[in-house]
Amino acid sequence: MKVGLLIIASEVLNGKIKDLNTHFLAEFLLQNHMELSLQMSVRDQEKDIHRALDILLESCDIIFTSGGVGPTQDDITKASLASYLIRPIVFSSTAMQVAQENYKRFGREYPGKDHVYSYLPEGFEALSNAAGFAPAYFVGFGEKSILALPGVPREFKRLVSDYFPTHILPKLKNRPKLELLVIRTSKVPEEKIFGEVDPSLWDKLSEYGEVSSLPVIYGVDITVKIQAETVDELANKRQKVRDIFLSSPIWPKVWHMGKESLEEVIIAKAKELNLTFGFAESATGGLCSERITNVSGASQCFFGSVVSYDTGVKEKVLGVPTATIENSGVVSLATAKSMAKGAQDLLGVDIAISITGIAGPGGGTAENPVGTVCIGSSRTGYLNATRYEFKGDRELLKQRFSQVALMTLLEEMEKIAH
Amino acid sequence: MKVGLLIIASEVLNGKIKDLNTHFLAEFLLQNHMELSLQMSVRDQEKDIHRALDILLESCDIIFTSGGVGPTQDDITKASLASYLIRPIVFSSTAMQVAQENYKRFGREYPGKDHVYSYLPEGFEALSNAAGFAPAYFVGFGEKSILALPGVPREFKRLVSDYFPTHILPKLKNRPKLELLVIRTSKVPEEKIFGEVDPSLWDKLSEYGEVSSLPVIYGVDITVKIQAETVDELANKRQKVRDIFLSSPIWPKVWHMGKESLEEVIIAKAKELNLTFGFAESATGGLCSERITNVSGASQCFFGSVVSYDTGVKEKVLGVPTATIENSGVVSLATAKSMAKGAQDLLGVDIAISITGIAGPGGGTAENPVGTVCIGSSRTGYLNATRYEFKGDRELLKQRFSQVALMTLLEEMEKIAH
Repeated sequence: MKVGLLIIASEVLNGKIKDLNTHFLAEFLLQNHMELSLQMSVRDQEKDIHRALDILLESCDIIFTSGGVGPTQDDITKASLASYLIRPIVFSSTAMQVAQENYKRFGREYPGKDHVYSYLPEGFEALSNAAGFAPAYFVGFGEKSILALPGVPREFKRLVSDYFPTHILPKLKNRPKLELLVIRTSKVPEEKIFGEVDPSLWDKLSEYGEVSSLPVIYGVDITVKIQAETVDELANKRQKVRDIFLSSPIWPKVWHMGKESLEEVIIAKAKELNLTFGFAESATGGLCSERITNVSGASQCFFGSVVSYDTGVKEKVLGVPTATIENSGVVSLATAKSMAKGAQDLLGVDIAISITGIAGPGGGTAENPVGTVCIGSSRTGYLNATRYEFKGDRELLKQRFSQVALMTLLEEMEKIAH
Repeated sequence: MKVGLLIIASEVLNGKIKDLNTHFLAEFLLQNHMELSLQMSVRDQEKDIHRALDILLESCDIIFTSGGVGPTQDDITKASLASYLIRPIVFSSTAMQVAQENYKRFGREYPGKDHVYSYLPEGFEALSNAAGFAPAYFVGFGEKSILALPGVPREFKRLVSDYFPTHILPKLKNRPKLELLVIRTSKVPEEKIFGEVDPSLWDKLSEYGEVSSLPVIYGVDITVKIQAETVDELANKRQKVRDIFLSSPIWPKVWHMGKESLEEVIIAKAKELNLTFGFAESATGGLCSERITNVSGASQCFFGSVVSYDTGVKEKVLGVPTATIENSGVVSLATAKSMAKGAQDLLGVDIAISITGIAGPGGGTAENPVGTVCIGSSRTGYLNATRYEFKGDRELLKQRFSQVALMTLLEEMEKIAH
């Protein structure tokens, strides 16, 4: 059983919006031990949609579509599916009911019997939308199924979750189980891992599944896709892959085995050790805090931060001495230390991490080029700072700075634990 | 001349990573008055790549590929292109030179003459990579061209910028000019805009180009794709579309005409009015600051923020009276006002905006369900707060809270201006 996805959205192809649904669906399928076989994005044009359906139906059994089910004139998915399958569009009282309920849920009145949502291609099923006004549609023919969903990510997400169990899962009996094992390393480049540190790693892992390797912001993620007929066999393969890493020379550079993000690992560790933390953020402008607070339950250990973008805020709020800034500069180990110490005292946390650097594009100097960052750590009786130089544009540098800051936080917590 | 994009990345289809390159290329092409006609994502499998090339070459003249040009075993783009075009892979001293230069640039030694980068399909051109180790490849045949680029977003981005002018642009003479006009509204739902506020708007706009409408986090973006043979004709159409909006009843809800983000509009406005600002962020956890500092030059007007996630930080750092929190609650108009005032004083800014709310999934009450947020504004002699209720999951709610906070900031600046 193969699954395909068709994004119907001129806005995605002309750069107006980002497609978020492909990634969501791929992640969702993975949790259900499946993957996407093929994804296409086309413009809101009937002939493009028809051509894509030709291709997707050739290789896939189940097709999700995203977008074009709303009420405006550029919403042509329903009509294009109807013409593709040569079905007339007819008035349907059940379709109208479904749409009426969607409106009712949001306290709005249905625009009237003749509204576009009351009409349906013959043999299609209109599906209630718990997150919006536009109904979704399902149609099965032969061995194939199409689930046509709204493109708004929140609605797409909700309806995949709602209708996967009822409309897709029953078609997927006895499929092999699939799982991605992600092993996350830091500080060693991809080529060095497989070329120098452990040249036999790739082949050893390949015995248990398809291996892939991906350079990420501040490290490399190695993924092994394992497949098995039973849950036991899956667990057995998982253990084998784990054992390979435990005895590999790359092991000291593995900071996590699993799909969890760095921020999730940090929150789990902080809870386990009963530690509180906060940040003094300059160049990252709030990104460290933002990432941490994406994790539900962060409030148990993350107390807060000072985003000290302006030098005056570093001095007045964090108490960095004017002399330190004048003598050492804003981007310096001394300032980073002082910021971290100031934040630890002000926020009343066990660990404070500071970030001061130059994300560019302006502001670089010969001594501190764009990409320079100093990360400070303060905990009771301990104060330290490290300087790094990275490359990239403003957004990438903010990402890198925040990644090395969060990695530093994780390391500080591990030091306390040992 | 049609342009297609092929993402070669199992990791995208199995949910491991997000594809960022489609959006980048679409935006890049738009700046060059072009758009993507078709985008496909396939797994790292030769037959899937071949099938996708069949389809893309059928309708497109220029194909960008992303991914699979690295040194590891799952990098099969070069080999798949060679087998597709039936070209032998041969040693190439120029290819080796290009790769050697890439290594040199990063201070690393080329692994040796027989490294995979020294080999090239016959007739391909190896292209230097200013942002990484893996060379890119170009091949032209008949009227068609393929530019094979690394998948790492930073490298993809850099190489598109580097090779578009030399390898793609010369093939695109005399094409019609294309431009997207984006008109950004807030606070009125999509259906209401076109159904009640201005029912003739869509048709009026359609006279000048293809219209589309997109619900965004806290409003609706209306886009008109205008096309013209000359720059003058383009300017003329642009003016006509602008005039339609100026005389439409939706005009008071238009907060910007243009592709700029809300944070870019805010920075421009703050610079124009010579105003400084900062935030007291609770539920948004740093997201407002993070968004603002993505704009280069933000430091001129954004001084900093306090991320007061913990109640103790609200009291100790921002000076919110314990009595206010006890009597009114953490999420209340009174606390929001006090936070904003505290931040304005502490940061020494002209305007401070505060955000206190419940992003969930836990923490909701009957009085303040998940999705409740209070936004406070403080400027000299003025203190205000407003309560909102939104729906969504944690990440979406953080987005909505930050959007309404930034919109409030823009409105406060406009009040000062008038």
